[in-house]
Amino acid sequence: MRRITTFIILFALFSQFGMAQNFSIERMDPPSWRPDSDGDRLEILVKGIDLNHVQDVISDNRNVTIASFSLADNPHYIFIRVNVSPVSQEQDVTFTFTGGRISESVKWTVKPKEAHHHGLSASDYLYLITADRFANGNPKNDVVASMNEDSIARSEPYARHGGDVEGITDHLDYIQSLGITGLWISPLVENNEYQSSYHGYAITDHYQLDPRNGTNEEYRDLIDELHDRDMKIVMDMVYNHFGDQHYLFRDPPSTSWFNQWKEYTGTNYRATALMDPYASDFDQKKMSDGWFDHHMPDVNQRDPHMATWLIQNSIWWIDEFHIDAFRIDTYAYPDQKFMAILDSTLLHRYPDFFIFAETWVHHEPTQYWFVRDNVDRAFNSHLQSVTDFQLYFAIKEALTSDPGWSSGIAKMYYVLAHDYLYSDPNRLVTFVDNHDEGRFFGMIGEDIRKYKMGIGFMLTTRGIPCLYYGTEILMKETDGHGKMRQDFPGGWKEDTINKFEVDNLSDLEREAFEFTQHLGQLRRDVPALSVGTLKQWAVTDDVYAYTRQADDRTFIILMNGGSKERVIDFGKYDEVLWGHRQFEVHGSTDFPTGEVIHLENSFKLLPYTIHILEVSNEPFE
Amino acid sequence: MRRITTFIILFALFSQFGMAQNFSIERMDPPSWRPDSDGDRLEILVKGIDLNHVQDVISDNRNVTIASFSLADNPHYIFIRVNVSPVSQEQDVTFTFTGGRISESVKWTVKPKEAHHHGLSASDYLYLITADRFANGNPKNDVVASMNEDSIARSEPYARHGGDVEGITDHLDYIQSLGITGLWISPLVENNEYQSSYHGYAITDHYQLDPRNGTNEEYRDLIDELHDRDMKIVMDMVYNHFGDQHYLFRDPPSTSWFNQWKEYTGTNYRATALMDPYASDFDQKKMSDGWFDHHMPDVNQRDPHMATWLIQNSIWWIDEFHIDAFRIDTYAYPDQKFMAILDSTLLHRYPDFFIFAETWVHHEPTQYWFVRDNVDRAFNSHLQSVTDFQLYFAIKEALTSDPGWSSGIAKMYYVLAHDYLYSDPNRLVTFVDNHDEGRFFGMIGEDIRKYKMGIGFMLTTRGIPCLYYGTEILMKETDGHGKMRQDFPGGWKEDTINKFEVDNLSDLEREAFEFTQHLGQLRRDVPALSVGTLKQWAVTDDVYAYTRQADDRTFIILMNGGSKERVIDFGKYDEVLWGHRQFEVHGSTDFPTGEVIHLENSFKLLPYTIHILEVSNEPFE
Repeated sequence: MRRITTFIILFALFSQFGMAQNFSIERMDPPSWRPDSDGDRLEILVKGIDLNHVQDVISDNRNVTIASFSLADNPHYIFIRVNVSPVSQEQDVTFTFTGGRISESVKWTVKPKEAHHHGLSASDYLYLITADRFANGNPKNDVVASMNEDSIARSEPYARHGGDVEGITDHLDYIQSLGITGLWISPLVENNEYQSSYHGYAITDHYQLDPRNGTNEEYRDLIDELHDRDMKIVMDMVYNHFGDQHYLFRDPPSTSWFNQWKEYTGTNYRATALMDPYASDFDQKKMSDGWFDHHMPDVNQRDPHMATWLIQNSIWWIDEFHIDAFRIDTYAYPDQKFMAILDSTLLHRYPDFFIFAETWVHHEPTQYWFVRDNVDRAFNSHLQSVTDFQLYFAIKEALTSDPGWSSGIAKMYYVLAHDYLYSDPNRLVTFVDNHDEGRFFGMIGEDIRKYKMGIGFMLTTRGIPCLYYGTEILMKETDGHGKMRQDFPGGWKEDTINKFEVDNLSDLEREAFEFTQHLGQLRRDVPALSVGTLKQWAVTDDVYAYTRQADDRTFIILMNGGSKERVIDFGKYDEVLWGHRQFEVHGSTDFPTGEVIHLENSFKLLPYTIHILEVSNEPFE
Repeated sequence: MRRITTFIILFALFSQFGMAQNFSIERMDPPSWRPDSDGDRLEILVKGIDLNHVQDVISDNRNVTIASFSLADNPHYIFIRVNVSPVSQEQDVTFTFTGGRISESVKWTVKPKEAHHHGLSASDYLYLITADRFANGNPKNDVVASMNEDSIARSEPYARHGGDVEGITDHLDYIQSLGITGLWISPLVENNEYQSSYHGYAITDHYQLDPRNGTNEEYRDLIDELHDRDMKIVMDMVYNHFGDQHYLFRDPPSTSWFNQWKEYTGTNYRATALMDPYASDFDQKKMSDGWFDHHMPDVNQRDPHMATWLIQNSIWWIDEFHIDAFRIDTYAYPDQKFMAILDSTLLHRYPDFFIFAETWVHHEPTQYWFVRDNVDRAFNSHLQSVTDFQLYFAIKEALTSDPGWSSGIAKMYYVLAHDYLYSDPNRLVTFVDNHDEGRFFGMIGEDIRKYKMGIGFMLTTRGIPCLYYGTEILMKETDGHGKMRQDFPGGWKEDTINKFEVDNLSDLEREAFEFTQHLGQLRRDVPALSVGTLKQWAVTDDVYAYTRQADDRTFIILMNGGSKERVIDFGKYDEVLWGHRQFEVHGSTDFPTGEVIHLENSFKLLPYTIHILEVSNEPFE
C-alpha cells in the first residue's frame, strides 16, 4: 500500500511541475444563465482539447462562484459546478482555466431572470407547423454550405424545402385569423444530419437554431411577436435521442451518455412494457434503451451528468426565449424516472408552465399511465397532458368505419366517458391529424361532410385542440411522412398560387377554411365551447349529441355518424335545452352559418352530418 | 287546524274501539335468522291480509325483541324491526300480532351462527352450470302442476328440460376430476314465470328453491358434499330485477319498490353512463332505472325497505347454506351506491367471503370502474372482482381475427399489461365462454388447435378460471341462448350416449377433454400456475410467450397466434429459463403430454400452436 501511495505522489508532482501541457476550450453548455430568485447550482459542461491538463478554474464574478470541478472520462470534457446568484443586470463572467503554466480565459454571461411562461389551458388552440414546409421567409438561409445536407429540393419529399422562422413570422396574421392562440413548431435547433434533416428531430446542437431555420434572435423575435398578439409558443423537445452527428455523440464525455448495444438494437415500441406488472426485463430494456432509429442514438438519461445537461438546456430555453409550453417528443421511450424529475423540476420552477407529451400508443389504458392521473400508484409522472391519440383514433374510426354498438361514432362517446381516469381531461391535446399520420381530408375519403364532423367535433369538445398547418385548406396526402408534410402553397415566392389568400382557394377549400375559421374564432371567444360544462348522450341509432354551456350561452352539437337518415327527438336534451327549439347555426353540413333556425321536436339528420347550434332567443322571422 | 285535529282523534278512537277488523299473516321475510356475535337489528317484512289493522306485535323470546313496527303503504304488509341476540341453540320464537280483539301468532326461528364461507382466490377453478341443462337427477320434480310453466320439452331451446340440483350432486366426481374447485350454478330459486323460466334470472321467490330444481334441503346437501370435497359454492345473485310474477312485484309494499315508467322503458345498456363525467341525466336514469326486459321489473334499491330486504336475503343464504361466494348478475344496472353498501356490508360481516360481478361491458376502462381498483375517486365500489370480459374479448379476437401490431393475439398481451389499473388482477374471473355468449369451440371455427390455445391460456394465466359445463367435450352451439345452454349428454336417463364417461367421447372430444382435464388438475395442484409469478413478453411475429414460477417450478407457455410458421429464439426468455432447454410437456398442439423434450435455442412454432412446457431437470434420454 505504501508503495502505491508513493507512486501516486510522484506522478502528481511530475504532472504539476513537468512539461507544460497545452489545452484549449471550445464551448461551455449552457453558454449563459438566468438564475432563479434563490440562485442556482449549475453543472457547466466544458468542451475542449486535452482538458485533463486543467488543474483549476476560477471566476472573476462574485455572483458566479466555482463550487468544484471534475474531469470527465474523455479528456475533451470537464464539468464545473458553479453557484449562480441572482443579478439585476446582465453581467460578464470570465472563467479562467489553468494547468501548469498554461491558462485560458472564457467569457460567460449571467443575466437577470425575466418573467413569462403562460402555459396552456383548454382556452387555447394550437397550430402545428413543420418548420421546413410552411413558408420560406428568407431564401438566403436555404442552403448553408458548411452543413452536411447542403441543398434544397422541393420536389423531393425528404429533402429540405427552405421553410424557416421568418416565414412563420410573416404569416402570423393568417394563423391568428383561424382563432389560433398558440404555435407548436417542430424542432428548430440544429439538425446537421446527412439526410432527412428537414424534420428536426435528430438534434445535433441543443443550444442554437439550425441556421437554415434562422437564428436564435429570429426565434426570439417570433416569440416576442406572438406574445404581443397574446399568443403562445410551444417548443418541441426531444429527450429520447440525439442526431448521430451531435458532438456529444460523436465524442461523448463518457461511454455512459448513450445506450450502446453490441449490435444495432431498435426499441420494441411497446410502451406497455413500462406499466405492465408482468413485463419481462427483456422488453423493458428494449423499450427504453433500444434505439428509435439508426441515425438517432438513444440517450442514457440515467447518467447524472447527461440528465443535468438535458434539464439545464430545457431551463435555458424557457428563460432565454420565454417559452410557454413544451411538447415532448417520443415521451414513452426515455427513462420514465428522468422524465418525472424533469417534469417536476420545470413545473416547480415555473408553476404556470405547461408540458404535454407525445404518447403515440394504441389503447386507452396505455395512454392513462403517462399522464398525471387518477390512478393511485407509487410512481407519479407529474406530466400534465398528452397528445390524445385515443380520441384521434376514435375520430378516425367514427369517420372511416361502420357504426356499431360500441364502435364507429360510438367510439367518440366512449373515449370521453372514460375521462374519469384523468385528473384533468381538459388539458389533453386533441387533433384530427398531425405530422406523423396521414392528412385528415385524405384519411376520410375527401368527404367534406366528414371533414366538418371531425373539425367541428375537435373545436367543440373538451381538450386543447391542435390543427396541423394546411389541414384547413384540405391538404390530403396520406402516404409517406415527407409528402404529408407538404409545402403550404404561397409560402414560397416562386409559388404559382398563394393559398394564404382566401380568394385563391377552390370552392371546396374555401368551404372548409371558412368552417374551420368560424369555429376556431368562436372557440377562442366563447368560453362555453372551451371550458364550458360538457354533457353527452350515449350514441343511439348512430347519432352522437352533446352540449356545452357557460355564461348563459348554450350549444348543442348533433352528429349522424352513419349512412342512414335518422330522426331524433329533442326531448332527450331538454335537461339542457329547457324546451328551446330555436338555434343559431355555427357550423353545419346543411345550414348556412349565421342562420337562425326553428326546429321541431322531431328532427331529421341526414347521413354524415354535423350541426353546431346555439340556443337562440332572437325573435324568429 | 283545530277542526282537523279533532277529526283525526275521532277517527283513531273509532278504529280502536269500533268493530273488530280481521287480518291474517301469510309469510315473514326472512323466515329465520342466525344473528352475528354482536346481535343484529332486522327489519322483517310481514305479508298478509288487512295488516293495517295490526296494532301491536310482541315476541315470546327474550333473544328476539320488538324495537318497532310500522304499516306499509299497502295494507298487505307491515315492517317489524327486531333486535336479535346470539343464541347457542336453535330456538322457536312466537310473534303475536294483535289488533282490536283479534290476535294471530306466527312461529319464527332464531338459530346459532355457523362458521363457513371460504371465499375464492386464484387457486380456485370454477365450473359454471345452467341448472336446468346439466343433469336430471330427479325426474319426479320435472313438472310441478301448480306452477305457471307446467311442462318440460327437451327439444325446445327455451322450455325447461328437467335438470336439477340432484343431477349436479350426482356428477361431482366427474366435475372434480376436471380439477374444478368451485361450482357456480345459475340461480336455483323460484322462477314461477310463464315462459323461459329455465334460465333462473327472473326470480319470483327469494327464499326458496324452485321446486323443479329441488328443495332447499337438497341444495344444502349439495353444498355439504362440496365442502366435504374441499370444493366451494358460488351463489348467483340478482339485485337488478325480479321476475314479473314475484309476489312483491304483483302486490308491492309501496309503489317505490320498483322503478316505474309511464310506458315500458328499457335500459340503454350503457354502463359508461355511470362513470362518464359528462353523462346526461337522461342516460344515467335510463341505465339504472330502465328495465332489463319486459318480464323483469327493475328494482328500486334506493327504497330503504327494499334495500334492507335484499341485504337480509343475501345474508340469510350465506348463513343458512354456507355460501362461499356470490356471483352478482347484471351488476352495472342496479343503483351503484346500493351495490357498494351491499358489498361492504357482506365483506365486513364475512371477511373471507368473495364477491364477483358480471360486468358485461365492451372496453377495458369501463370494466375498471366497477372493481375495487387503483383509481382514486370519491366513490368506492368495494367490489373485489368482476368477470373479465376484456380478457374474454381478447381471447376471442386472438383466435378469430388476423394478428396485427396491437390486435389479434397481441390483445391478450395488452389486456394483461393494463392490469396496473387493478389492485388485485389475480381475483378477476376468466373464461373462454359462458352462458350468454356462443360456445367456445363453435366460436373458433371448431379448430382443436385454437381450443387448446384458449383453454391452455385460461388455465395458465392470472385470474380465477371458469369453465362453462360441456365446453370440455366440445359443445359448439353459438346461436341462441336456449341452444347454447345444451343438455349434457348422459345427464338424462333416456340419453342414448353418456358423455360423462370418457370412453363414450369421440377422438376429438377426448383429445379436448384430456387436455382440459390435465391442465385443470395441474393448475389445482401446482401453485406456479395459479399464484406464481407471471412474466410476459410483448407479442413479436404473432408469438406470445409468458412464464409462471413458484416453488422452484418454472413453466413457459408459447403460442403462435398467426397462420405463418415462426421461429423464436429462446435466449429472449433466459431471465427466467437460465439456459434450460429441456422441458416436460403439459399440454401442446404438437407434443404428447408427459413427454420430455430438448429444444434448440432456435425453435419453430407452427401456425396456431400452444406449448405449455415445464423446465425439466430430468436426465434426457
